[in-house]
Amino acid sequence: MNIEITKDFIEQLTQGINQQNAKVVGELLRDLHPADIAELFDELNTKEQSFVMDLLENETSADVILELEEEDRKKLLQTFTAKEIAEEVINEMDTDDAVDIINELSDRKKDEVIAQLEDQEHAKEIVDLLRYDEDTAGGLMGKELIKVNKDWSVITAVKQMRKQAEDFEEVYSIYVVDDDNKLLGLLSLKRLLTTPANTKVADVYNDKIQFVKTYTSDMEVAKVMEKYDLYEVPVVDELMQLVGVITVDDVLDVIREEAEENYQLAAGITQNVDGDDNIWKLTKARLPWLMIGMFGGLGAASIMSGFEEALEKFTILLMFVPLIQSTAGNVGIQSSAIVVQGLANGSIKGGIWHRLMKEFLLGLMNGLGIAMVVLLITHFVFGTTYYVSMTICVALVAVIINAAIIGTFIPIFLSKKGIDPAVSTGPFITTSNDILGVFIYFSIAKIILGF
Amino acid sequence: MNIEITKDFIEQLTQGINQQNAKVVGELLRDLHPADIAELFDELNTKEQSFVMDLLENETSADVILELEEEDRKKLLQTFTAKEIAEEVINEMDTDDAVDIINELSDRKKDEVIAQLEDQEHAKEIVDLLRYDEDTAGGLMGKELIKVNKDWSVITAVKQMRKQAEDFEEVYSIYVVDDDNKLLGLLSLKRLLTTPANTKVADVYNDKIQFVKTYTSDMEVAKVMEKYDLYEVPVVDELMQLVGVITVDDVLDVIREEAEENYQLAAGITQNVDGDDNIWKLTKARLPWLMIGMFGGLGAASIMSGFEEALEKFTILLMFVPLIQSTAGNVGIQSSAIVVQGLANGSIKGGIWHRLMKEFLLGLMNGLGIAMVVLLITHFVFGTTYYVSMTICVALVAVIINAAIIGTFIPIFLSKKGIDPAVSTGPFITTSNDILGVFIYFSIAKIILGF
Repeated sequence: MNIEITKDFIEQLTQGINQQNAKVVGELLRDLHPADIAELFDELNTKEQSFVMDLLENETSADVILELEEEDRKKLLQTFTAKEIAEEVINEMDTDDAVDIINELSDRKKDEVIAQLEDQEHAKEIVDLLRYDEDTAGGLMGKELIKVNKDWSVITAVKQMRKQAEDFEEVYSIYVVDDDNKLLGLLSLKRLLTTPANTKVADVYNDKIQFVKTYTSDMEVAKVMEKYDLYEVPVVDELMQLVGVITVDDVLDVIREEAEENYQLAAGITQNVDGDDNIWKLTKARLPWLMIGMFGGLGAASIMSGFEEALEKFTILLMFVPLIQSTAGNVGIQSSAIVVQGLANGSIKGGIWHRLMKEFLLGLMNGLGIAMVVLLITHFVFGTTYYVSMTICVALVAVIINAAIIGTFIPIFLSKKGIDPAVSTGPFITTSNDILGVFIYFSIAKIILGF
Repeated sequence: MNIEITKDFIEQLTQGINQQNAKVVGELLRDLHPADIAELFDELNTKEQSFVMDLLENETSADVILELEEEDRKKLLQTFTAKEIAEEVINEMDTDDAVDIINELSDRKKDEVIAQLEDQEHAKEIVDLLRYDEDTAGGLMGKELIKVNKDWSVITAVKQMRKQAEDFEEVYSIYVVDDDNKLLGLLSLKRLLTTPANTKVADVYNDKIQFVKTYTSDMEVAKVMEKYDLYEVPVVDELMQLVGVITVDDVLDVIREEAEENYQLAAGITQNVDGDDNIWKLTKARLPWLMIGMFGGLGAASIMSGFEEALEKFTILLMFVPLIQSTAGNVGIQSSAIVVQGLANGSIKGGIWHRLMKEFLLGLMNGLGIAMVVLLITHFVFGTTYYVSMTICVALVAVIINAAIIGTFIPIFLSKKGIDPAVSTGPFITTSNDILGVFIYFSIAKIILGF
């Protein structure tokens, strides 16, 4: 347990694989958790991975497949026939995981695999789950759950539970339903262990429970589980019938992915890449955003060229364009990050006007603070005239307020329109700041310096 | 269950509170989950909150306090005496939560509260937990766990379990220890329910389990729980003695906070603020970063003024400073975001040279793509000469490669030195890009245009 995977270990393993020495390899992997074996697979090529898979028991190899990165899994599964996928992989998995894997297959292979499933009930459950959207509770849930009827006695419940639990590794919750499979509540395992055997389930179950609907979004599910500190949440259909259960490990992925996606979007990266993706995929994720930024830069150039004649007299103003621009950019990113995160974790409350007013005040304060420092530095270090220094400082305050308000307004506005506010952050807000910032700067210069 | 908190409901509630009508208020709150009541508290002032608290049972009010935002909790707890905090709050909480609350109190109140705890064992456990660093497994763990001795029979184990579980709401895992309290493994509840009563625990427990040490960092704990899909993980001390258990709900917070912190740092916000914090706190979190950016802008101005004479001949070059700068900034943020996330979620593998080489190629490709578009637009739309257009484009490729390499190198370097790489993103990388970008641009101009 808690094994450190050392270079030495990997060397022994690859050596064993290359010598096709099943005994050595089997011995090395014997005590490893499937998640550790999956991690080891990063160091092996597909052929070596296949050799290892053949040595593992079906249950273990199915777990390893589940833990692999999607790309690696796809490559490895291409070496499997549909029959092998059905028998050795899908058959060994819980329904929610099975559905995730099947969804990654090509349409043709998907049908072939399902046709090969021998356990008819498992197959039916999987087909049932396939119809839900991946981003909803229906797409996250599994069919593995223990349910008991409210009219049963505790002793019957325990017997039924044992039968139902045969295929699962562990039991955490027992759901209570009526004759129509309508969810009524939860019977705690502790209660079950401490109640006389002939008590009726109806007398001891807890009816104050949280649930979600099949069509609840995955992010909403994550919020419910976080808010109520749940390990599992039952899923009901429109008729309140119990149709599945979502476990917290699936929700962990949702939470991490959402937070990472917001960050990536803010950084100007189309979602779902990581550092180990190939250069083409990374370029595809990054270049479009850089192009947007490029048009912002060209837009700023075009605005400046409109002031060209005047600028020949005040070339010094151009030196401070980076200052104006990067300050506006930084403020815009700060404001939007706070709003996007607040919308994601539910901490944003109160009306939009209240928030804009607050950002206005915040921008004013930050702007005055920075402007004072800049006033002194430009005048005494750069030796600009009083009017030029004033121009720079007034413009700084104005662009900071403008950036704070844009950075706050756009995400809230998009969210109200049902668009993911995270797309607005990063390059979009920066680009609009670039153009507006330069325009505000030179307009103020025109007023103060009178060109 | 699943109650929507409507405006109407809040109105009824505040009306009830203002009329000091305990019956109406009690009725309204009766079926609410403590997490929902905590959410309602956002709409109430401290005096109104106190009125509600007095109506709730101690167990419920302790749960409500736990779910409040830290600021609100502090305000509310100031209306409590040390004795009330000890008896009505801490006494009702699991040890890990109790410790979190106690850690928020002032040093004096902390001691007073601990002195007032009546349950000596609970008090001892809390004092024991207080000595661990908040960011370690010891700081996350609670003392509430069920453990059985390997030499017991299953029937003895069940009896002991019932006794130990008296104070908890739910039981999920049963840990197996030897006579020295050394952690040996896990006894599954399912196993317990399906094994003959006189079987020995030693014969049925699972010895392949994951655990963490008291000093394991909270992020490492989160990684272990995510990797192995655990609901709970046992914590052992240096002697492998079982000292506590960490539940997944505590780890959810760690994961969300880490992801949010990385995003906030990238956006130039000192960690741990949200939109509802007051203006002073927000200014304190944001202004220092803006100041760093400001010095970057002034640095760029100072570099440009070094080229001043030459620039009077080529004022047109200044128009494209925003383009150079925002492109470099965007590339730097993209590169660093990928590295920081990769370091956080463990997906970054392979050596630093390999990664820098990759970023070099990526920068070259993105740079050439953008430069081609810019070449055409500057020449045909802005009417710049061939040499000026060439200058802009060569500079673009150079600053993009530079930004990609800086954005990749700095976080990896910091991480190797044991510093959180997220601090390097945002303003730091942007600022160094601002200065270096302008320098590269004008240096290339000097070479190509020969001024």
